[in-house]
This record gives sequence, C-alpha cells and structure tokens, in this order.
Amino acid sequence: MKHPPGTPFPARSQFGERISGSSGILELMKDLGEALTENRDAIMMGGGNPARIPAMEALWRDSMSALLAQPEAFGEVLAHYDPPAGNPAFLDELAGFLRRQCGWNVTRKNLAITVGGQTAFFFLLNLFGGKNADGSLRKVLLPIMPEYIGYASQGVAPGLFHAIPPKIAFTGQHRFKYQLDLAAAEAVSPIGAICVSRPSNPSANVLTDDEVRALAALARKRGVPLILDNAYGLPFPGVIFTGATPYWDENTIVTLSLSKLGLPGTRTGIVVAHEDIIQDIAAMTAVTGLANTNLGQALVRPLLRGDRLAEVCETVIRPFYRDRCEAAIAELEARFSGLPYRLHEPEGAFFLWLWIPGLPVTSRELYRRLKAKGLVVVPGEYFFYALEQEDRHHHECVRITYTQPFDRIRRGIDILASELRELTSTGG
Amino acid sequence: MKHPPGTPFPARSQFGERISGSSGILELMKDLGEALTENRDAIMMGGGNPARIPAMEALWRDSMSALLAQPEAFGEVLAHYDPPAGNPAFLDELAGFLRRQCGWNVTRKNLAITVGGQTAFFFLLNLFGGKNADGSLRKVLLPIMPEYIGYASQGVAPGLFHAIPPKIAFTGQHRFKYQLDLAAAEAVSPIGAICVSRPSNPSANVLTDDEVRALAALARKRGVPLILDNAYGLPFPGVIFTGATPYWDENTIVTLSLSKLGLPGTRTGIVVAHEDIIQDIAAMTAVTGLANTNLGQALVRPLLRGDRLAEVCETVIRPFYRDRCEAAIAELEARFSGLPYRLHEPEGAFFLWLWIPGLPVTSRELYRRLKAKGLVVVPGEYFFYALEQEDRHHHECVRITYTQPFDRIRRGIDILASELRELTSTGG
Repeated sequence: MKHPPGTPFPARSQFGERISGSSGILELMKDLGEALTENRDAIMMGGGNPARIPAMEALWRDSMSALLAQPEAFGEVLAHYDPPAGNPAFLDELAGFLRRQCGWNVTRKNLAITVGGQTAFFFLLNLFGGKNADGSLRKVLLPIMPEYIGYASQGVAPGLFHAIPPKIAFTGQHRFKYQLDLAAAEAVSPIGAICVSRPSNPSANVLTDDEVRALAALARKRGVPLILDNAYGLPFPGVIFTGATPYWDENTIVTLSLSKLGLPGTRTGIVVAHEDIIQDIAAMTAVTGLANTNLGQALVRPLLRGDRLAEVCETVIRPFYRDRCEAAIAELEARFSGLPYRLHEPEGAFFLWLWIPGLPVTSRELYRRLKAKGLVVVPGEYFFYALEQEDRHHHECVRITYTQPFDRIRRGIDILASELRELTSTGG
Repeated sequence: MKHPPGTPFPARSQFGERISGSSGILELMKDLGEALTENRDAIMMGGGNPARIPAMEALWRDSMSALLAQPEAFGEVLAHYDPPAGNPAFLDELAGFLRRQCGWNVTRKNLAITVGGQTAFFFLLNLFGGKNADGSLRKVLLPIMPEYIGYASQGVAPGLFHAIPPKIAFTGQHRFKYQLDLAAAEAVSPIGAICVSRPSNPSANVLTDDEVRALAALARKRGVPLILDNAYGLPFPGVIFTGATPYWDENTIVTLSLSKLGLPGTRTGIVVAHEDIIQDIAAMTAVTGLANTNLGQALVRPLLRGDRLAEVCETVIRPFYRDRCEAAIAELEARFSGLPYRLHEPEGAFFLWLWIPGLPVTSRELYRRLKAKGLVVVPGEYFFYALEQEDRHHHECVRITYTQPFDRIRRGIDILASELRELTSTGG
C-alpha cells in the first residue's frame, strides 16, 4: 500500500495504486523535467529530449510565424476541438506523404493522432493486452529485451507483458549487438500483440528487415497485431544509421511521433493501422481526453507537401545525430581506455547503450552515484522487465543520451569514466 | 462483442472493448469535429466549443507574438518535456493567482497540469473509484443528475458511478431548477469520491454555496474527496451568472481548464488538490503520456501576473456569454410561444437546458431528426446515467450551446421550434 492509513485519502483503487505508483518512467520524467526547468546545471544524459538543432528551431519559428500571419487559421488551431482522430486536413497530407515516401497503401482512415506516442501505447497495449471477457489474461509479447521503459507501467491489468531475452553477438573488442531470439518468441502462446521499438529505445539496436518480417509473420500466424514503435525511426525523424527500410501492412501498427523532430512540447503521436483499430484509438481519445492538441499538426503540415519533411530528416536531423553519436563514441573510447566495457552497435535513436561486464554495483546504484556528481543517466535495469529469469547483464548497463551540447557530453563522459574507474578498481 | 470473429483483430481486452465502445462522448466529439472541420454548414449547437470572441483571439495572438519574439522561450515551449506536473514557473504564477483571487492556501505543490480537463477526470475518477484490493467496487457518487456526459464512459472498472436524481423546483411558467437531494446523497455508502460540475454541464445549474458546503461536509465524513469540475466556472473562465463563490479545501479537488478561455486546441487542464493527490496525478501523466502540452501554459502565464486574467474574465468573457445567453433565450421564448417547454434557470456555462414535458419521441430520436435538418444538439438522455430508476424526464431534454455566431443560433432555434411543433402536434 502506497497510502497507509493516517495519511489523507488512504483509499486508492487498485488501478490508481498501480498506475500512480513509483515507476522508472516517473523517475526519468522527473529527472528530465527538473534538469530542463529547475536544475539546469545537471548534465542531462538521461531522457529522450531531442537536441536543440538551430536549423530545426528556425524551421518551427518560420512555420509558427506563417501561421500567426493568418489570424483565421491561427485562431482555429487554438480555439477548435478537432475530431478525435486528428485534423482531417493534416491526416490527408500525412497519408499522401506515407504513400509517396514509404509506399504504404494508406488513407486518412488508417491514421489517428494521439497526445504523444506514450499515450498511443497506453491505448494500444491495453486494447490488445489485458483481461479477456472470461477473466483470463492476454499478454503482450516483447520479443527482444531491453525494451522501452515507458511501456513497463502502462498495463491496466497487472502482468501485462511476456518478455524474451536477446541473443548477444560480440561484434568487436568493445562492441556487441542484440539479436532476436525468434524460436523463443514463437514458443509463447497465446498472446494479444507483439510490440517492439525500432530503433530500440534503449539499446540503439535496429531490427533488420528480416527480423521485422519474421515478427510480422508470427503476428499474422497468431491472429494478433505487430506494433512497431518508430518514434525515432522511419520515415521521420529517420534517426537510423543502417540500411533498414520502413515496414507496414494491414496487420501491423506503426506509431510515429513529432517529438523527435523537436516538438515534444506539442505532444503529438501518430498511429498508422487498419481502419478498425484507428476507430478504436479515436474512441479512446474521445473518452479519455476529448480531442488532440492541434499545434504540432499545424506546424508540420506545410512540410508534408512536396515531401520537404523527408528532405529535412535526410539532410539535417539524421546527419546531426550521426555526427553527435560518432563524436560521443570517440570521446568515450578515449576516456574509457583500459576499462572493461562494451557499447551496443549504434544503429539509431539518441542513445549509447553501455554495458560494463562485471560492474560491482547495480546500475541503479551507479545512477545514484552519478546523479550525486551532477550527471543524470538512466539505469539499464529499468529496461529489463517481465522476464522470467534474472541475469547479471540486466544490472550492468546504462543508457546515455547524446543530445545535449557537446561540451556537456564531454563532461558527462568524464564523470562516468572516473566513477567507473573508481568502482572497478575498488570493487565497489 | 464489438468485434465479432471474422473481422480483423477480433480480440480486444475487456478494458479495450469498454473504453473504445460507442459512447455519448464519442458521438458528441465526432459531431463537433465534423461540424468544425468538415461540415461547416451544420449549425453546431451540440458541443462545448467556446465562442470565437474577437477580443480573446487578439489577446492570444498578442501573447503568441510576444513568445515568438523570444526565440529561446519559444524554443523551450516546443522542444522541452516539462516535469509531469507541469511547468514550474507557470504553476508558481497560478498558485499566486489562486491565493489572491480565491483566498485558497495553495502553492505549486497543490497544482498539476493535465492534457485537458477530460484527462484529469480519467485520472481522478479511476484513482478514487474502481476495484479495491479485495475485489470490491468503490463507487463515485454523482450527487445531482444530469451530469457531464464525458464522465460516463471513463470507468476502468464497469459500474463506476452511483447517481442521484435531482429535486425539481418550478421557478416560473417556463422555468425550472434542479436542487440537490442531500438526504439521498447521504444515504449512499461506502463511496470513493463525490463528483459534480459547477456550473453543471449540461444543465447550467450552479450549486449554491450552501449545497457545496453540504457536499464538502459529506465527503469529509466519508473520508473521500469532493471533486468540483469548474471547467466553466470559478475563478476562470468565470461563466457564472449567480453570486456563487469559489470553493476549495484540502479535502476538495477542483479542476480548471484553459479550454473555455478559448484555448481547447492546446489541451490544458488543471487540478488543484492536496499535495498527495497532485503527486498521483503527475505520476499518472508520466505513465500514460510522459508530459503535458506546453503552449497553453505559455500563452496564459503573462495574464496571471497582476491578475489580468481575472479582469478579462470579468469584462470580456462573462459579459459575452451572459449577453449571448439572454439573446438566445429571448429568441427561444419568441419562437416557442405556445409550445410546452421549460428552460433550466440559466446560471452559467454555455448551454440552455431545454425540457419538453410530454415529448412524444426520445431525445435521441429528436437529435437524429434535427441533425437531418442541419442542426446538431446533444440528446439529454446521455447526461442521465448510473441512475437506479428510469424517468420520463430523462428522455425529454436537450442541451443547446449558444456559442456559435448569433445568426446561426437564430436559425437553429427556428429549426428546433419547427420540429417540436410538428412533433407535439402530430404526437410523433
């Protein structure tokens, strides 16, 4: 019980206790929020806040100025409730963009807006996972862990997930890569959905096209949807450094977000799915929140015409993060010389996923020590959940974001290297 | 089963079936969205979309221009995830405003932002209502029906509400007023919370200060919170035409919204509550949606300083709706001459609540007939739910919004009067 008798309002519902209880995502968002608004001296290498890319910020200012210059259009953005699925004109433009850029056979009816990608997952995970009418539990299969921290606490029903550990391939002296254990995933039945982030948040792994096709085939065989979380991926923001291609079919649900384009403050998520599912998402938006936020759609809409958004992702966003990633790795390799570490192959997103084999403390303890020294990272163990077996590896990783200005990243890596040297030399 | 075998993805969870199923609020938001973005010829007297008040729109344009002129501040609004409770600077300003304007003893720790007031209720109703750890159900008491349509489908647990019918006072030849049946409310036990909208959406009733104090005392006695939905009320937007005063104490949860100030597209709700509850709300925001939308807070913040927002409510918003209300009533009285009707005392919000004693069809059927003729209203029966006994009155009312331009209201009342004349002369 989180609220023992004696405190005001001791009574919360079961759902309330669970969903408002302490969770990794809550700690992460509090750290992130405090770092960005209250404790600006902290080196924030924890959350997934996008970088402040000047060219992108100029683009949004221009888009906003153009909107403001049309009082009627600006007035509508503020003063109208859109239909629960989103703004019809935006959805039409987006469908055209997806047809042209990805070759997906979609119309407006295959698209729904949500107040951010996180909310899309709250809807999707509980739509397909959870209690059946007969009281039995339908689980969501997470086929390759580690997986996004933000799903872990979203189950309306307790025990929503069944997770599969990854196969680990050593790809260099200080490198490794997670691979899908398809046989283990195929052994789980029944399930309500399969869900995976691509690129993976936290590991920066990008499932290969073959792996995605195998999961899509498994989902079809089980009669359940495959949910692909493309928040960092394709077609936008496109922060993928491998040759992976976008995937969608009528049995696949793809989620996208405007956040990683630099617009997290607008809370705009996108669901691409079969029309039946879109109707359910729109209904859930109406019931839980009435309507969506309008601003993100209004700012991005002009960039969909003529596919300018794709060009921006290709020429501004992806190069920015690829360069930043390479520079962070160079810095890390230089400072970590002699330390026992492995870095996951950096295939996309905004993160380095660092594994310290033999780390003498848990990653949560490492997080606490680093935070005390002014560096915020995310403990890796939050990303290993719903697994049947414990493994040392789950406590030996941290997620490091490289979106902050580079001098801060350098200082952060410095703090991290010093702490690890101290820990690994003294044995904790 | 909404999804019979044979359709794609037949399997939804129980929660999914319920929350995505057909509901009054979904129909309402679809109508509203279509009317505003697709079918602009329809006369929209259904939803609660605020009026386009030129002075308010100018204010938001000015606020936006000022923000845009500060690239760093503008960049932060778009590019930052705020802490889950909301922007600390906004919350500090708002706490000061509430202390000065309402005399409430609150700080930032008593305030949380949500993505709209509707989402605040999804959190609050399921935090205090729903299944207990032992499997028993804790109900939310709705002490005076009709009550807001948007609560009806929000229960994660089925059967979330226990509702009490109103006492009806005849206050004039064509007027009536709902009154709290306190004895009936006191007879219900156990409960998890008491919830009421003030002004009432849909009836425009405003609970008297005495009625609010009686409910607050009952809530304290039961050890549960009283939830007051002030979306249309005090201290902003202040659309109350009686002398009612704002109420809050540590056992009361007040919700506010920026929507009725003209900013529904920003999705910004506010919860004022005991610090423990605020922490729960922030946690629920983090888990279900990561963070809030930033724009609404950024646009309103400059108006909190020096209490300019209170002045705007007093001199622009309330007079606008009061004048509009009086004009709509005058029009209705003129066109309804000879018809059997009663209007609820218009004490606030954006609605007329019309009762047609002896209406020969249900209000849903009346809604369908009116929609076919180009007028959208909301059937009254959606606002009567969770009641133990059926009553003819529940099917004899409609909610009419008077926020559209007045020539449309006039045409809408014309269509309504014609339809009612036809129905009441032929007997349906």
